Amino acid sequence: MDAVKLTEEPSAGQTQVEGAKPTGKPQKKEKERKDQKSAAKQKGSNQSNAPKKKAGDTELIGITCKKSEDLAEWYQQVIVKGEMLEFYDVPGCYIYQPGSYRIWEFIQDFFNERIRKMEVENCYFPLFITEANLQREKDHIEGFAAEVAWVTEGGKNKLEKRIAVRPTSETAMYSFYSKKIRSHRDLPLKLNQWNNVVRWEFKHPMPFIRSREFLWQEGHTAHLTEQEAGKEVLAILDHYAAIYEDLLAVPVVKGKKTVNEQFPGAHYTTTIEGFIPAVGRGIQAATSHCLGQHFAKMFDITIEDPSQEVKEGEKRNKLHVWQNSWGFTTRSIGVMILIHGDDKGLVIPPRVANKQVVIVPVGINAKTTDADRQKLYDEVDSLSKTLKDVGVRVACDFREGYSPGYKFNDWEMKGVPLRLEFGPKDSANGVVTTSRRDQEGKGTIPITDLATDVPKLLETIQADMFKRASDEYASHRKIVREWMDFVPELNQKNVIIVPHCTGGECEDEIKKDSSGHIEGQEVDVRAPSMGAKSLCIPAEQPEELAEGTKCVNPKCGKEAKMWVMFGRSY
Amino acid sequence: MDAVKLTEEPSAGQTQVEGAKPTGKPQKKEKERKDQKSAAKQKGSNQSNAPKKKAGDTELIGITCKKSEDLAEWYQQVIVKGEMLEFYDVPGCYIYQPGSYRIWEFIQDFFNERIRKMEVENCYFPLFITEANLQREKDHIEGFAAEVAWVTEGGKNKLEKRIAVRPTSETAMYSFYSKKIRSHRDLPLKLNQWNNVVRWEFKHPMPFIRSREFLWQEGHTAHLTEQEAGKEVLAILDHYAAIYEDLLAVPVVKGKKTVNEQFPGAHYTTTIEGFIPAVGRGIQAATSHCLGQHFAKMFDITIEDPSQEVKEGEKRNKLHVWQNSWGFTTRSIGVMILIHGDDKGLVIPPRVANKQVVIVPVGINAKTTDADRQKLYDEVDSLSKTLKDVGVRVACDFREGYSPGYKFNDWEMKGVPLRLEFGPKDSANGVVTTSRRDQEGKGTIPITDLATDVPKLLETIQADMFKRASDEYASHRKIVREWMDFVPELNQKNVIIVPHCTGGECEDEIKKDSSGHIEGQEVDVRAPSMGAKSLCIPAEQPEELAEGTKCVNPKCGKEAKMWVMFGRSY
Repeated sequence: MDAVKLTEEPSAGQTQVEGAKPTGKPQKKEKERKDQKSAAKQKGSNQSNAPKKKAGDTELIGITCKKSEDLAEWYQQVIVKGEMLEFYDVPGCYIYQPGSYRIWEFIQDFFNERIRKMEVENCYFPLFITEANLQREKDHIEGFAAEVAWVTEGGKNKLEKRIAVRPTSETAMYSFYSKKIRSHRDLPLKLNQWNNVVRWEFKHPMPFIRSREFLWQEGHTAHLTEQEAGKEVLAILDHYAAIYEDLLAVPVVKGKKTVNEQFPGAHYTTTIEGFIPAVGRGIQAATSHCLGQHFAKMFDITIEDPSQEVKEGEKRNKLHVWQNSWGFTTRSIGVMILIHGDDKGLVIPPRVANKQVVIVPVGINAKTTDADRQKLYDEVDSLSKTLKDVGVRVACDFREGYSPGYKFNDWEMKGVPLRLEFGPKDSANGVVTTSRRDQEGKGTIPITDLATDVPKLLETIQADMFKRASDEYASHRKIVREWMDFVPELNQKNVIIVPHCTGGECEDEIKKDSSGHIEGQEVDVRAPSMGAKSLCIPAEQPEELAEGTKCVNPKCGKEAKMWVMFGRSY
Repeated sequence: MDAVKLTEEPSAGQTQVEGAKPTGKPQKKEKERKDQKSAAKQKGSNQSNAPKKKAGDTELIGITCKKSEDLAEWYQQVIVKGEMLEFYDVPGCYIYQPGSYRIWEFIQDFFNERIRKMEVENCYFPLFITEANLQREKDHIEGFAAEVAWVTEGGKNKLEKRIAVRPTSETAMYSFYSKKIRSHRDLPLKLNQWNNVVRWEFKHPMPFIRSREFLWQEGHTAHLTEQEAGKEVLAILDHYAAIYEDLLAVPVVKGKKTVNEQFPGAHYTTTIEGFIPAVGRGIQAATSHCLGQHFAKMFDITIEDPSQEVKEGEKRNKLHVWQNSWGFTTRSIGVMILIHGDDKGLVIPPRVANKQVVIVPVGINAKTTDADRQKLYDEVDSLSKTLKDVGVRVACDFREGYSPGYKFNDWEMKGVPLRLEFGPKDSANGVVTTSRRDQEGKGTIPITDLATDVPKLLETIQADMFKRASDEYASHRKIVREWMDFVPELNQKNVIIVPHCTGGECEDEIKKDSSGHIEGQEVDVRAPSMGAKSLCIPAEQPEELAEGTKCVNPKCGKEAKMWVMFGRSY
């Protein structure tokens, strides 16, 4: 989003371009057509030999398919044309353009502030893990074996032993924990790192959502007791929910994974689950695990029991520490795009938008004198300064040779939350015209109220975006009591909350039995007929289970233990 | 630095430990002995089976060798016992503990703020690079071929083509630049990323200074003209110098690399050069390169000449863009440690210290009543709050069972810039006693002036640390006009500035001829007799070269073109 420069003076090093118009501001701004150009050319972006367009072309090729008709194609166009991401020549790896990386930085700042208050400290562990270390926790290596990328050559030599690129860092970190933790006084130990991890094998990569390399934070902590560890697991889950709900305007459901779905090597896994209305599928948003003492046993992370009464010379018993790990990934950006984007392109929530406001000068035509145009541009600059002074992230679009309509579409495609239009009439009336990205229609704000009303309006947009998504998610979470309603409700693009035994085999059975569709039912042909899996056991149970309630699966016959949320899922 | 928690209430999840003292604050703080314990045990940290010490041991094993006597051993002890870094089971890879990673975060914040003003945007490119891409720039691949780690297996399969782990990202990024840049309006393009890179082969890894994986930022920009690119190269070099001088209190010399020493594939390389007085060696601190048009030619990054007058239908000539790349690494933390550390351990400049101040309660003995102790601790808490309120990063050391002397040594080893001691006498006098980490002696500050005087004192410490290092560097930069003084001055642990022809072969000759020592001269046996290489052509030349001045190398005979700084080097 280079447009930031539009409100600032060009640098001293900027080169005068011969042939460009010699008059003041418009000429300075002319080079800013790049945004349009790069948007316009993205259609051919996978063909590196596509002919270059002539300078001065002004067509904007917007999003050419509807979200409701072909979500996959729509998603790819939106992220590329909206300059969030670009494809790369190693399959499953993607380029995070500034548009998406900036959102990641907002997430980092938000989360760092919160975990610092919990006395978590950031650190960095190596990218590489020896095979011996990776294999020390049995369930863990089984969970990741199929996904590990291996380095076998360094420089011009074969390595004696191959080395794993981290798929996650439990096994990289816990030898260190064993050294570092010698007494209960060394607890709790709370470390976090922001890094890249690699999970090589999978069939269907999807930008942001499922990729071979992704960015995340991984927190790893050690505690004296299960209770203390458990409190942290939930505190972190709350922070994760806050990133989604308060920053990304994405509603989530908090819960616990069933045993079938928990992290390899975990004692238990808590989760927040999102929902993509366009396909009616759930999506795992982030997880916070209590690892129990499994890794502590494998890595010998022990202390001497501080509560034991011992006589002089007597040895205290060894206790294994209780560990947590928790991770939040760049997948979140994809979820945000899938939920909020529309047929015009991206819709970015104001709190994470690199540019929250764009000001587009309007009402200029062939009859406008240079002096009048300059006056208007100066006024736009002044509006921009007013907003910047109150912390609003603002761009001005002074590009010449593009109609206001073209500019409107362009900024809409990039998802800028609020557009301000300003022309001679607005100037005469002492107002700016507003257009929200998240809804149709226009309004006005008196110039004198700009510094207070724009920040307020941005917060309103943020809140409205969340409410809309939240209402939609709520309307697609159906309580289902009988098996006969299970698949029909799934096929209506819902996730469903059912009485369930929480047993793993029963889950597998449900997955199988819900994978077809029921005869006589109308089926959405775009919803793949995959089976439903358990998404989570919601922390907020819809109601108390009546005594004797059976598991929803008629083949199971066991008593239901909890309401469990099932759904088709990413 | 968990000690931050000492000034806050324990969390609700904190477990009451049976057998611990039941009285208020002292008991809550007891678990904080961990810092001591981990420091004390570090001596055996490379032996993972070393016996664990009994809880309650109180000896502090400080730094056991002098910086002036064995720099390598001193460095290893200081970084491990000071909890900056820990060794890891993949050679040449290291664990960045919070002590060092926090410094990296301060550097990131500082640099991000500055480059955002230059309209540089952060982004993220993949870790992996195809071999075909890596090989597209000939000099570049020659420079890195011996250092690349290769992934050849993914999951359970051999890859069809091996894939490089990035040693730097020029070749990962520039295909994208070719797509993105179609017109002069797309320029300048300014991207930066913070990431990890891997350079596998080298003989002597050294924590922070030279490691197989390291963290850095790499900026990559494209410009219309050489002039514009050149201005940015220097602006970035200024920011790099500011990180060293203003944050890390490390003086540097700005300059340009000779052709022999520039980046593989660069047009020219600018550099800042540091100096490690303990060994009298120069050290490359950071580099900012103009890549010229070399990569643009290989990656077809072109625009149509905007200055060309063309008729309808006529094609404009293609121009290749001018590119820069610039990088700043975690090596900087090692340079800071090598320069400021002393025989007691780390000395961290206040601006990058995670804890700038530690308050140690003193004057408590066996006769002190619980009530008096509690009163003193409450006063310490209050001092801490006063400092926190004005933005000072402060820890309080309430640990029981450790003498004040023990605590002093412990915090000194970790390099905390300012210690405040506070006992009943100080309380009665309304003062705190101050002890600066960077110099001997104590002072006092009235409690009423704490909020103003402590921040001031921290800035004084910062300035004094820089001035001391700066004076020392200056005193070891010797102007040498004759070859007869060249090696003797090197052997006096100096870097030297000489009239030089700037020719590559002459440089090689000087390196060879300065590698021995001269008969009859006293030689520092600890200074390896490596040859001197050119460190940089200083931007600030000491004086105008008199007409006809010859190159310092008597075998060369050419005319000197510039004053060039030579030295033994890391």
